[in-house]
Amino acid sequence: MTPPAELAETGRDFYARGWARGASGNFSVLLARRPLRLCITAAGNEKGTLDETNFLELDDDAEIVQGFGRPSDETLMHLSIYRLRPKARCILYSQTVWGMVLSDRHYVDGSISMQGYEAVKGLSGVASHEHIERLPIVENSQDQVALSHVLENVLIENPLVHGIYIRRHGLYTWGETVAETRRNVEIFEFLFEVLGRTGNIQ
Amino acid sequence: MTPPAELAETGRDFYARGWARGASGNFSVLLARRPLRLCITAAGNEKGTLDETNFLELDDDAEIVQGFGRPSDETLMHLSIYRLRPKARCILYSQTVWGMVLSDRHYVDGSISMQGYEAVKGLSGVASHEHIERLPIVENSQDQVALSHVLENVLIENPLVHGIYIRRHGLYTWGETVAETRRNVEIFEFLFEVLGRTGNIQ
Amino acid sequence: MTPPAELAETGRDFYARGWARGASGNFSVLLARRPLRLCITAAGNEKGTLDETNFLELDDDAEIVQGFGRPSDETLMHLSIYRLRPKARCILYSQTVWGMVLSDRHYVDGSISMQGYEAVKGLSGVASHEHIERLPIVENSQDQVALSHVLENVLIENPLVHGIYIRRHGLYTWGETVAETRRNVEIFEFLFEVLGRTGNIQ
Amino acid sequence: MTPPAELAETGRDFYARGWARGASGNFSVLLARRPLRLCITAAGNEKGTLDETNFLELDDDAEIVQGFGRPSDETLMHLSIYRLRPKARCILYSQTVWGMVLSDRHYVDGSISMQGYEAVKGLSGVASHEHIERLPIVENSQDQVALSHVLENVLIENPLVHGIYIRRHGLYTWGETVAETRRNVEIFEFLFEVLGRTGNIQ
Repeated sequence: MTPPAELAETGRDFYARGWARGASGNFSVLLARRPLRLCITAAGNEKGTLDETNFLELDDDAEIVQGFGRPSDETLMHLSIYRLRPKARCILYSQTVWGMVLSDRHYVDGSISMQGYEAVKGLSGVASHEHIERLPIVENSQDQVALSHVLENVLIENPLVHGIYIRRHGLYTWGETVAETRRNVEIFEFLFEVLGRTGNIQ
Repeated sequence: MTPPAELAETGRDFYARGWARGASGNFSVLLARRPLRLCITAAGNEKGTLDETNFLELDDDAEIVQGFGRPSDETLMHLSIYRLRPKARCILYSQTVWGMVLSDRHYVDGSISMQGYEAVKGLSGVASHEHIERLPIVENSQDQVALSHVLENVLIENPLVHGIYIRRHGLYTWGETVAETRRNVEIFEFLFEVLGRTGNIQ
Repeated sequence: MTPPAELAETGRDFYARGWARGASGNFSVLLARRPLRLCITAAGNEKGTLDETNFLELDDDAEIVQGFGRPSDETLMHLSIYRLRPKARCILYSQTVWGMVLSDRHYVDGSISMQGYEAVKGLSGVASHEHIERLPIVENSQDQVALSHVLENVLIENPLVHGIYIRRHGLYTWGETVAETRRNVEIFEFLFEVLGRTGNIQ
Repeated sequence: MTPPAELAETGRDFYARGWARGASGNFSVLLARRPLRLCITAAGNEKGTLDETNFLELDDDAEIVQGFGRPSDETLMHLSIYRLRPKARCILYSQTVWGMVLSDRHYVDGSISMQGYEAVKGLSGVASHEHIERLPIVENSQDQVALSHVLENVLIENPLVHGIYIRRHGLYTWGETVAETRRNVEIFEFLFEVLGRTGNIQ
């Protein structure tokens, strides 16, 4: 499958799972590093009916190289992640009830902490349930430039994390392939629900 | 698609999502403003198997212009909304567990308040997660005339709201198209579950 | 559709909704009153793959008139309901998480009480959300004769109820047709979840 | 169906139900007792797209007799179960939110206790809702040899249990056929959710 086809299928699947709704959600694949070329969702398309034409090819200034439409508002965040995660070749966004609840509940802690679950071994490169995954929580902002700078600092300070949660917004996860990234999302969303129902608030 | 076909498809989708059950639920599209012509669900049809023949064309006295059957009991509320929301061309009703729970929990507050969630940007015309959406909660009544008068006052007092919740009944949402209205419902129902699970009662 | 075909379709649908699991669940249709003839599920069949051959025709002594297999253990309860509810022509059983939880939580009250919800109007013959539906809760027993006698007393003492809950077992609902009975189940199961999530325990 | 085909179908179904995610999950069928021959999932395959080629035939030293790939890490546990449960011919693993929550909540009790639910009769050989099923909870470990020894002791000490829960890992269930084992899983997972929502934490 072409990157747009693979991301379109991913978007429709996320919609069906309740991980995206309406036109929200943004997904990308890195086409090349030098010069940087990005395939990313165009803004405003229904995720439930996403198709190959709903994607744009951008350069590292977020300028459109190919395709029609406006890039996702979150493009700058995608660029920041690709710059600071040299192995990442795919970035997916998911927005779910339990992630939202935990991003509030654990905002004061600065992160959603996962340890002791066999399922964490599903995250890329994790070998034991004793691995501690501390998913950073970042405050949301409509200023995409400011938000992407905050994101960059968090990525630098947390070299090992598999994702970042924008408070009351959603989860950004990355991986070396679309399939690996989807597995990471699947693990995070599962553990969000487990943590959510385990705490004294569900 | 014709308005009846589009609303029938919407009804079947709402049923499949658990947003409608049995014969409950009422959906309409505004066909014309002067003279006012309305396409609305006939009463008593299963929403899971709704088809184009389950709709009536009415005038602004709720008199049947075309089609067979009895108009939805809630027709007067639809008329009130179209009268007081000049841009509305579609009204949808949804009845869900979390909406029901919140309409009870927040009845004393007079509204279900949503702020700080990126998802509110999915509501028509909302540009920031800092937007405050205060969804009014109205007490239910079997007297449709009285209920529609209450509804009219609430619509006048709350010019910016995207919907109204009839306590322990369901949500009324409107928009300029069926698609836009469905997006609004999708956002509200998502945030209802988030708020429901965030509070100290789920 | 023939009664067995209609009940088989209902069983598969209940399984798909999580209202039945494995071989549990028993469904019947009254074929005739004098002499009484019953079409009921044979014991031990998977509800997810139920077909027309998984039903038996019985008389009012629960003797097999037609078909192969053993009648559902709950046959005596079906006979009791048909005897004491002259208008009932269908009985359905559903077993769900929320019904189970409420049958425990409200066992001390003797019933699960539903009032104030517009959805109660979905129950046969209910005209207002102010209607009070008090669903009796009966303690479970492996002695089907004893259990059916208890059921009969409850049916006599509660002439207006639309169903009975066997504690930690499941819900029995009836109606004049399979479709009407399914609507009643749909309403009860929806309200069970609403009540479950509204209380201080979910 | 061949054992690999039946297990592949089971894996895809478990994935669709949310009982398995990503590449997690391990399923086996006993092909022969003397000499012992096992058909078990190869490691690292997506459960949502499992097919007949994703299985290996092993002997009682976990040596590959047929097929390509690496046996599931949990192979030793499967061997332990088959050795100590002479009637078992199938072992299934499921990993769900509610099981995870209960394995934490009841870890101090040493087991998840189920009694009084009609649904327990769905477990192989259980005749009454008064049956007490005490599902042992075992601490997780990455040392599969140590873990399988612990499992063996638990199996010896609890001759009547239908499954074992590895804390924060998942449920192991067995039966005489794949169908019977799936029914057992279905009952356990249903009761996990009931217990989870009944307690003061959901």
